[in-house]
Amino acid sequence: MELEFLGTSSGTPTKTRNVAGLALRTAGGWALVDCGEGTQHRILFTSLSPRDLRAIFITHLHGDHCYGLPGLLASAGLLNRTEPLAIVGPAPLERYVRGVMETTELRLPYPVTFVDVAALPQADVLPDLAVTAHALSHRVPSYAYAFTEKSVERRLDTARLTAAGVPRGPLWGQLLNGGAVTLPDGRVLRPDDVLLPPRRPRKVIVAGDNDTPALLVEAARDAHVLVHEATYTDAVLAKVGPGPQHSSARMVAEAARDAGLPNLVLTHFSPRYQDKGAGNGEKGGGPLTLGDVEAEARAAYRGNLFLASDFARYALDRDGRLARMGDAPPAQA
Amino acid sequence: MELEFLGTSSGTPTKTRNVAGLALRTAGGWALVDCGEGTQHRILFTSLSPRDLRAIFITHLHGDHCYGLPGLLASAGLLNRTEPLAIVGPAPLERYVRGVMETTELRLPYPVTFVDVAALPQADVLPDLAVTAHALSHRVPSYAYAFTEKSVERRLDTARLTAAGVPRGPLWGQLLNGGAVTLPDGRVLRPDDVLLPPRRPRKVIVAGDNDTPALLVEAARDAHVLVHEATYTDAVLAKVGPGPQHSSARMVAEAARDAGLPNLVLTHFSPRYQDKGAGNGEKGGGPLTLGDVEAEARAAYRGNLFLASDFARYALDRDGRLARMGDAPPAQA
Repeated sequence: MELEFLGTSSGTPTKTRNVAGLALRTAGGWALVDCGEGTQHRILFTSLSPRDLRAIFITHLHGDHCYGLPGLLASAGLLNRTEPLAIVGPAPLERYVRGVMETTELRLPYPVTFVDVAALPQADVLPDLAVTAHALSHRVPSYAYAFTEKSVERRLDTARLTAAGVPRGPLWGQLLNGGAVTLPDGRVLRPDDVLLPPRRPRKVIVAGDNDTPALLVEAARDAHVLVHEATYTDAVLAKVGPGPQHSSARMVAEAARDAGLPNLVLTHFSPRYQDKGAGNGEKGGGPLTLGDVEAEARAAYRGNLFLASDFARYALDRDGRLARMGDAPPAQA
Repeated sequence: MELEFLGTSSGTPTKTRNVAGLALRTAGGWALVDCGEGTQHRILFTSLSPRDLRAIFITHLHGDHCYGLPGLLASAGLLNRTEPLAIVGPAPLERYVRGVMETTELRLPYPVTFVDVAALPQADVLPDLAVTAHALSHRVPSYAYAFTEKSVERRLDTARLTAAGVPRGPLWGQLLNGGAVTLPDGRVLRPDDVLLPPRRPRKVIVAGDNDTPALLVEAARDAHVLVHEATYTDAVLAKVGPGPQHSSARMVAEAARDAGLPNLVLTHFSPRYQDKGAGNGEKGGGPLTLGDVEAEARAAYRGNLFLASDFARYALDRDGRLARMGDAPPAQA
C-alpha cells in the first residue's frame, strides 16, 4: 500500500503546496481521498491517471477539499474513461456535483455513483479494501475514512512441512491454495495444519478536518497509519481561536500516542508556516515554519512521525512499517 | 494596457498550459476573463492579487473556463477582501456559483454581484473601460468581450503654442486641463485651439469558444487586439468534425485579415499540439506542434501574430502596438 500526497496546504494553495488531495495505491489500483482545486494538475506530474481511478472519498464539503472534483471528472471523460466511478462523501456531495454538472452542461461518458458515508461499511466500494467512516468535529460534517485490507496473503510454515517430511514441490502450492494433501504414507495434511497465522491486515486512516483528534483514538488502536490535519501549533491555535475548528500538532500527536499508533503523517498545514527554516518562529526567532509544527508533535509522540509535502510518497509494507519513498521530483510545473 | 495569460490550453490542463484565464491590466487595476480550474494557482506566480481584482468576465459556462471561480472567490475571502466583486457572464453563471457556495457553505466577506451579459454595455462594470459583449457560436451560449478605453489623455500641439508665443509653463498645464487662457496681449486661447486630436481609444476583444470567427469581423474593425481560440488546425478540425464547435487557426486568421486587425493573439490550443518542434506534424514528419498552428495562421494573416503561452505578457501601447514583454519565468511550481 502506498500513499501519495497531491496537496498538503490548508484553505488556499501556496507556491509549493496545493490544497487537499491524497492518492491511496494498492495492487488493485488507486483511490483518491479529497480533491481540492488543482488535484488533476498535480496528477499530471505523477504516474496516476484519472482513467483508472477506482473511487473518490470526500472527507467534507469545504472547497479546499472538493473544488477539484468537477474538473477531474471532466478530464477523466476527455480521456474516454468508461468505467463507473464511485464518489463517497457527506450528504450535500451529490447535490454539489450534480448542480455543477447541470449548470455547466458537463456530460460524462461513464457513470458516476454517489455513496453517502452513512452507507459505509456495507457499501462495497473497493474490491480489496473495506472502508469505514468515522465522524469528526468540524464546522461542517467531516469524516475520517479507514481503509483495511479485506484479505491477507498466507504463508506456509516451511519448518513444520520439512519436519513432516513433505518435500518442497507441488504439494506446497496445493496447501497454500487451500487444498488438503494426502501423503504417500496415507497421512492427510490440511492447510490449517501448516499455514502460519495470518498477519494483521493493514489499516490506514485518512481524516478530514477535525478539532478533536481524540475522536479517532479507538479507531486508530489497530491502525498502522493515521493521516491527520495539523493546521496549527498550539500557539497559533490560541491566537486564531477555536472558530475554524482545526487541530494543533500537539492535539493530534497526543491522540496518536494514546492509540499506540506506529505511524503518524501530518498534513493540511496553514499557509502561514514556511516550508524551511530553523523552526524557532514561535520563540520570536524568525518566521513560523513547519519545524515548529514538527517539534510540537515530537514532544508528545514517539512513533514514526512524518510531515507530508506535495508529491511525497510513503510505502506501508506488510509488516506495518511506513517509509518515505525515494523522491522523484516533479517536472517543472 | 497589458494582457497576461494564465492559461492557454483547451479542455484539460497540460504540464505547461493551464485551462483558460487571462488578466487584463490597466492603470486602474486588473480584470479577469475566464477562470478555469487552477487560475488562482497561476496567480500565485504573478504580481496579481485576488484582493484587488476588479471584475471577472466569463465567456461561457464550460468547465475549462469557469471551474476555478469558486476557489478564487474563496481565496479572495481568506485574503480578507472587502471590496465588492462583479462577475459578468451568461445566464447560468449565477446559478452555478450560488449553487456551489450553498452546497459547500462558502461565505465571503465581500459582496459578489452577478451581471448578465445582456446587461452590457449599460452595466458600468469597470471605471476606465467600456465593455460590450458579442454573441459567438458554440455548444453553449458563448461571448466575446470588447474592452474599450472610456477616455484618452490629450496632448498639446506644442508647435502651435510656441508659434502663438505662449511659453512653456503654467499656461500649458491650464490648457491641458481644459481651462481657457488669456494671454498678456489680450488674446484668449481655448483648449480646443491647441490640443492635438485625441488618439483612438484602445480596444481589446477577448473571445470565448467559437466556431465562426467571422461573427467578430465587424466588432474587430476598430479593435487593436483580438484574443481568440485556435483549438485546431484545419487538418485536425476535419478529423475531429464540427461537433465541438471550435475554430481552426486559418478561420481565425482570415477573420482577422478581413477586419484589418493589427494584432492577433491565438490561444486555447488542443493538448494534442506539443509546444515545441519543427511544425511539420501535419506533413507526417513528426508530432503535431504549435508550429503547425502558427504556420496555418501566418498563411492567411499578415498582421502581428502571437501564439500565447502561460505567463506570457503583452503590452498594448497608446499607439496600438502590441508587444510581448520581457519574460519573467515563474518560480518553480
